[in-house]
Amino acid sequence: MKTRKIAIIGLGNIGQAVVKNIKKYSSLISRRTSLKIELKKVCDINKRKRKIADKFSIPFTANPLDLIRDPQIDTIVELVGGIEPAYSFVRGALKEKKNVVTANKALLASKGREIFSLARKVNRKVGFEASVCGAIPLIRSVSEGLVGCEVKKLYGILNGTTNYILYQMQKGNIDFNASLAEAQAKGFAEKRPSLDINGIDSLHKLSILSYLCYGVWPNLNKVYTEGISKISLLDIRYSAELNYRIKLLAIAKRNDGLLDLRVHPTLVPAEHPLSQTSSAYNAVYCDTNPAGELLFYGQGAGGPATSSAIISDIVNIASYENGFMRKEEKVSFRNTKDLKMRYYVRFMAQDASGVLAKISKVLASFNISIASVTQKEHKLRKCVPIIMITHEAKEDSIRKALSKIDNFKFIKYPSQVIRIEDL
Amino acid sequence: MKTRKIAIIGLGNIGQAVVKNIKKYSSLISRRTSLKIELKKVCDINKRKRKIADKFSIPFTANPLDLIRDPQIDTIVELVGGIEPAYSFVRGALKEKKNVVTANKALLASKGREIFSLARKVNRKVGFEASVCGAIPLIRSVSEGLVGCEVKKLYGILNGTTNYILYQMQKGNIDFNASLAEAQAKGFAEKRPSLDINGIDSLHKLSILSYLCYGVWPNLNKVYTEGISKISLLDIRYSAELNYRIKLLAIAKRNDGLLDLRVHPTLVPAEHPLSQTSSAYNAVYCDTNPAGELLFYGQGAGGPATSSAIISDIVNIASYENGFMRKEEKVSFRNTKDLKMRYYVRFMAQDASGVLAKISKVLASFNISIASVTQKEHKLRKCVPIIMITHEAKEDSIRKALSKIDNFKFIKYPSQVIRIEDL
Repeated sequence: MKTRKIAIIGLGNIGQAVVKNIKKYSSLISRRTSLKIELKKVCDINKRKRKIADKFSIPFTANPLDLIRDPQIDTIVELVGGIEPAYSFVRGALKEKKNVVTANKALLASKGREIFSLARKVNRKVGFEASVCGAIPLIRSVSEGLVGCEVKKLYGILNGTTNYILYQMQKGNIDFNASLAEAQAKGFAEKRPSLDINGIDSLHKLSILSYLCYGVWPNLNKVYTEGISKISLLDIRYSAELNYRIKLLAIAKRNDGLLDLRVHPTLVPAEHPLSQTSSAYNAVYCDTNPAGELLFYGQGAGGPATSSAIISDIVNIASYENGFMRKEEKVSFRNTKDLKMRYYVRFMAQDASGVLAKISKVLASFNISIASVTQKEHKLRKCVPIIMITHEAKEDSIRKALSKIDNFKFIKYPSQVIRIEDL
Repeated sequence: MKTRKIAIIGLGNIGQAVVKNIKKYSSLISRRTSLKIELKKVCDINKRKRKIADKFSIPFTANPLDLIRDPQIDTIVELVGGIEPAYSFVRGALKEKKNVVTANKALLASKGREIFSLARKVNRKVGFEASVCGAIPLIRSVSEGLVGCEVKKLYGILNGTTNYILYQMQKGNIDFNASLAEAQAKGFAEKRPSLDINGIDSLHKLSILSYLCYGVWPNLNKVYTEGISKISLLDIRYSAELNYRIKLLAIAKRNDGLLDLRVHPTLVPAEHPLSQTSSAYNAVYCDTNPAGELLFYGQGAGGPATSSAIISDIVNIASYENGFMRKEEKVSFRNTKDLKMRYYVRFMAQDASGVLAKISKVLASFNISIASVTQKEHKLRKCVPIIMITHEAKEDSIRKALSKIDNFKFIKYPSQVIRIEDL
C-alpha cells in the first residue's frame, strides 16, 4: 500500500476537523483507494495548540518551515487563512516540490494566478475543493465534470452566513441586526462579520469559479459587489408577497462574448431551489451546454463539512499523476451599467397627491416601464411604501432614475432597489 | 499539445450527441486542458449509420474489431447498451490495452466486477460517469468528492421516465396509462418501457452506487425492486392531501453494519427537494459523515446531457495517470423483511359496519399501530377508500397483515401499500 505523508499548517476549527477525520476515516480511505494517508506533522504559530496534536499523538511544531523543508512530506495543507503569511507558506511548499491543499478563497482570489503558475512550473498540484461551497464537490464537478461544457449562467449562494441571516429574517420576521446577532450567537457568523456581510467572501469564491468556468481571474475591484446590510425586513416581506425570496447571489453569465460577474442581493422566484436553500446551506445552480441545468446543494462551511473536501483533495492528489491545470483565457467583461434586467424598487414617500405620477414620469423619461405597483395603505415612519416591479430595464437607467427620484422632497428615505433574476 | 485518439461503438441517440459535441467543444476542451481529443473512427453494426459519420467527416466501420484492434486508438467509447455484445466489446478493448468509457448501466450492474477487475489487471481505466444520472457529475462526486466520507443514506430519483410519469399524473391529474402514453409521445419513455417502469433501470444504477459507496456489487435478484405500474391516481391525490409526493426512489442505507438496498415507489414529504424534482429530471440526496447532507440535481437522460458526462470521462482519463479503482468489500445486507418504517396503506372496502374495526384488529394483532385514518365519503367502484398512515412497523408484519386483510370478503381490491421515507 502506497503511503502519502502530509502536514497541516493551521489548527483552527477546520484544521482540527481535518486531523480528527483523517484519523477516523483513514481505514475507510485505505479500503477504497489502497492509499495510506499519514499525518506526519501539524503546525500552528500558537503554541497552545500543541495539546490538540498531543491528543492525536502527532508531532507538533510552531514553525511552518519545519514542515515546508521536511523532505519526507508530500503534501502541505494550508489552513491559515488570509493573504499573508498563507501566501508565503504556499509558495514555500511549492518551491520545495510539495503539493498544496488549501481552503483559502481570499488567497486564491488574490494570488490564484501566481499560485497555479508556480504549481505548473514545479509540476505539483494545488487542491482547492474546500475553497468554494465546503462539502459540495463543486470544484471537481465544474473543472472535471463540466470540462466539455460551456457555462451559460451560474448562480450561487456561496456564503452560509448571509444566507442564514436572510433566511432567519424571513422565517423569524426579525430585522437584519437581530438576525445577525442570532447568527453570531449560534456560530453562523463571526464576531467581525464584514467579509461575509459585504459580499466579499462570495466575491472571492465567484472569482475562483470564474477561473474554472471561463479561464479568467477577475480584477476584484471591478466586480460589482453589494452586501446584505441594506436589506430590510420590509423588503423580505414585500418580496414574499410577490412570491420571491431575497438571496445573496454570486452571478456569472456569458453571452454575446461578454462575461458578467456580480455579487448582490437578488429576488429569486420562491419556488426555485435556490430560494429553498435554507439556514446556512450553500447551493449552486448553473445552466450549461450540453449538460443542461444542474444544481448542487450542501453545507458550505463548518469544520467537519470542510474537512471532507480537504481530505478528498489530499487523496485525489495522491491518486493522480496529473491534476487539473486550467489555462487562462482572454475574456471581455460586460459593463455592469449595461446590464438589463427586472428590478424590485421600493420608494418611501409622503402620502400626498401626485407622488405616483411624478415617480412614474421620471421612470418613463429613462425608458423604464413598470410591470406592477403596490402602494401599501399603512404608513411606516410617516411614509407610504410604494413597491414597483419593473419590466426589463438598463441598470444605468435605473440608477440615474432613482437618484433623480430620491431628490424629490416627498421621498423621505433613499429608495431601495433589488435586482430580480427570474432564472 | 497531447493528442488522445478515441473511437465510438454505437451511433444511437447518445453516440450521435457525443460525435457532435466533441466536434463542437474540442477547442474549448483544448483551451482548458491542453489536450486534443481526436475522434479517429466510429462504428455501428447498422451500415446506414455511415451517413452520420460522413456528415462529420469521420471514418466509419460496421465492424467493432476494426476499432478494438487499431493500435492507434487510446480509448473506446461503448454506447451499444445491453449485456451482449457490449460486454465482448468492452473486454476486447481492455485486453487490447485501451481505456473504456461507457454509459451502460445494465452491463456494469451485471458484469462490473469482471470489468473493473480486468481493467486493474491491464492497468487501464473505465469511465462510467454517464451510467448514472446523465449530466450530473455524480460518479465523480461520490467516488472522488466523498472518498473520505461514509454514506449513511442515499435516496435517488435515478430514472427520468418514471419521474416524468409520476409527475405528470400529479400535475395533470391523469392516470398511469395516460401519463405513460404522454411520456412516450414526448420521447421521455421508450416504446418498450418495462425496464424503466419496473424499476430495473433504477436498480442497475443503484447497484453501481452501491459499489462506489460500499464497495459491493449486490446480487440483482436479491434487491427488493418494485416499479410504478401499480400507482393509481388515487394514491397520488391522497398522498398529496397528506402533504407527500410519490417518487420512485432507489435507496441505500447502512446502519448497525447492515446494508439496505431497495427500489420502490415512496412517499416523500412535499417540501423535500426530491419531491420537487419535476419532469424527467434526476436527483440524488445523501446524508454523509462528515460532509453532511448533499443534493445533486440535473438531467438524467437524453443525448446532449449524457454526452457531457461521456466527454468528461474521455478528457479526465486522458488527463490522469491512475484512475479511480475501488476495492470490493464484504458487506452484510439488511433483510427487507426486517425493515421498519412508516407506511401509507389504502384499502378499498365495502361500506359496511364493522369494517374499520376488523381491519384495525388485524393490524393490532401484528403490532402495527395507526398514526392516521381517513375514510373517504365518496364511493369508488362501489367501495370506500380507507387511507391509513401507520406508525413505524415491520415490513414483514405489514405484508402478513395485508394479506390477511385482503382475504376479508368486504375488501374488494388488493390493498395498496407505499412506504414512507420522512427523510
